[in-house]
Amino acid sequence: MHELNLIYGVDLIGTFVFSVSGWLLASKKKLDFFGASVIAFITAVGGGTLRDLLIGSQPVGWMRDENYLVAILVGIFSGMLFKKVFERLRKTMFLFDSIGIGLFTILGIQKALAFELSPIIALIMGTISAVFGGVLRDTLVNEIPLVFRKEIYATVCLVGGGLYLLLGLTTLSPAFQMIITIVFIIAVRIFVVVKNLSLPSIK
Amino acid sequence: MHELNLIYGVDLIGTFVFSVSGWLLASKKKLDFFGASVIAFITAVGGGTLRDLLIGSQPVGWMRDENYLVAILVGIFSGMLFKKVFERLRKTMFLFDSIGIGLFTILGIQKALAFELSPIIALIMGTISAVFGGVLRDTLVNEIPLVFRKEIYATVCLVGGGLYLLLGLTTLSPAFQMIITIVFIIAVRIFVVVKNLSLPSIK
Amino acid sequence: MHELNLIYGVDLIGTFVFSVSGWLLASKKKLDFFGASVIAFITAVGGGTLRDLLIGSQPVGWMRDENYLVAILVGIFSGMLFKKVFERLRKTMFLFDSIGIGLFTILGIQKALAFELSPIIALIMGTISAVFGGVLRDTLVNEIPLVFRKEIYATVCLVGGGLYLLLGLTTLSPAFQMIITIVFIIAVRIFVVVKNLSLPSIK
Repeated sequence: MHELNLIYGVDLIGTFVFSVSGWLLASKKKLDFFGASVIAFITAVGGGTLRDLLIGSQPVGWMRDENYLVAILVGIFSGMLFKKVFERLRKTMFLFDSIGIGLFTILGIQKALAFELSPIIALIMGTISAVFGGVLRDTLVNEIPLVFRKEIYATVCLVGGGLYLLLGLTTLSPAFQMIITIVFIIAVRIFVVVKNLSLPSIK
Repeated sequence: MHELNLIYGVDLIGTFVFSVSGWLLASKKKLDFFGASVIAFITAVGGGTLRDLLIGSQPVGWMRDENYLVAILVGIFSGMLFKKVFERLRKTMFLFDSIGIGLFTILGIQKALAFELSPIIALIMGTISAVFGGVLRDTLVNEIPLVFRKEIYATVCLVGGGLYLLLGLTTLSPAFQMIITIVFIIAVRIFVVVKNLSLPSIK
Repeated sequence: MHELNLIYGVDLIGTFVFSVSGWLLASKKKLDFFGASVIAFITAVGGGTLRDLLIGSQPVGWMRDENYLVAILVGIFSGMLFKKVFERLRKTMFLFDSIGIGLFTILGIQKALAFELSPIIALIMGTISAVFGGVLRDTLVNEIPLVFRKEIYATVCLVGGGLYLLLGLTTLSPAFQMIITIVFIIAVRIFVVVKNLSLPSIK
């Protein structure tokens, strides 16, 4: 119960963060208010929606709980009202984005395992949950998805997700397993950005 | 029974109209006959397909009733044979397109409510049914979806769908509720185009 | 049993072939290792995944059997290590690609029929299985899908799939029906390429 509340809360925060980031990206494109809201919406729930469709968990998550809509709307209005603030707080946004990615990776893994899928498939589902909202966002605004080109964004999800699966074999408390994983993902992302690392592009 | 027949008939007409509009757009791109047919097909059933996937109503609608395929094929051949006519009849096409959008919004709402989803989710499902065929069409021919850029296309669906939900609380006959909603959507669209309105693009 | 093993084996080979072709295409774009792997993955399983979603067979195929992941990974590493070889062996690759298309068409038809869908819907499902991985691949790397523009790629699937459905009415052994269909698809594709045919583009 306690653990479920924690997961639920962080899921809503992750949804909010992704909604803000979707809105901010859309605001750089020639989109009207509706278009930008759809992009924010898809960024926020796209990954989890694809995960639920692949698993067969329908109606998909956000359709069964209107708090997700609220989180997205708050994200859109926050993006609209505090755009300047968010842009000045790039580092904070990066931190929130990393937290969102970590949370969505963990939640995707948990859901897949609950459907009795194998750990390796669960890891893929976690990564899809975390990165596919961004893939859909980029595809809809007609760009090659960022995650395919720069930053070892998704690789971090895979490695972090792998760590989380390993921690699941320990006796650490569930909340602690999640915290370790998210801290790890944040640390790796900061390390990657500071060192300006990226996966070698294939030639 | 009577009401179901009405809905069924207008659904097929909406499918036909969207198929024609998909074909006409594809004919401006360098697509072969097959490619243009696929675009017509996706324009016609894309929105309803996404709605059914999200809800979990599978096999999706058009797979269970071949009359939808017939409606699409008639649309493709009409687009091919009477292209000039359709292009001269822009206003008529706009009217049909508005009818199609109204119908698909209503049908999406009805289906979602039948699956015991909340009214707000039903409204989103109605809008997805109406506009997502066009979004997929534009994405596949490599353009930023029209609905994200111009015209308050989708906003009209949301407002019209909201009206339809309100009418559902009255004792008006189902057919009359549908007619009022569709006339409203057509009227708003004409008003928007005549006044050359669009949602402010965010900066 | 014997037949199932045959189908299973060719399905894995088809997955491998499509994975290689996805990787080779991705290697011409500015994608990092992860991005290219995702493209390979989507090329390999995208068509079957869409088919399974539309039919409602979830979790989708590759999530229930890790041999598909192995086939994709072998395809990625083969593409990476033997890129030069594959590029020199264009004709062999074309042959494999045709085999893959034939196999996926047949498997899609079989799966749809097993779900008691009509033959015409089964034919569409077969074609989607065969070509949609490529459609998704092209859309993600921001190109109008090849299949919509050149070569009568998908038409071959439809015609080959139609032949397969007709053969199903005969008393020929299942394996023989598959072989005839695949040989037919390969022959038609070679004929089309040699004669440099394509469907007329609509104007």
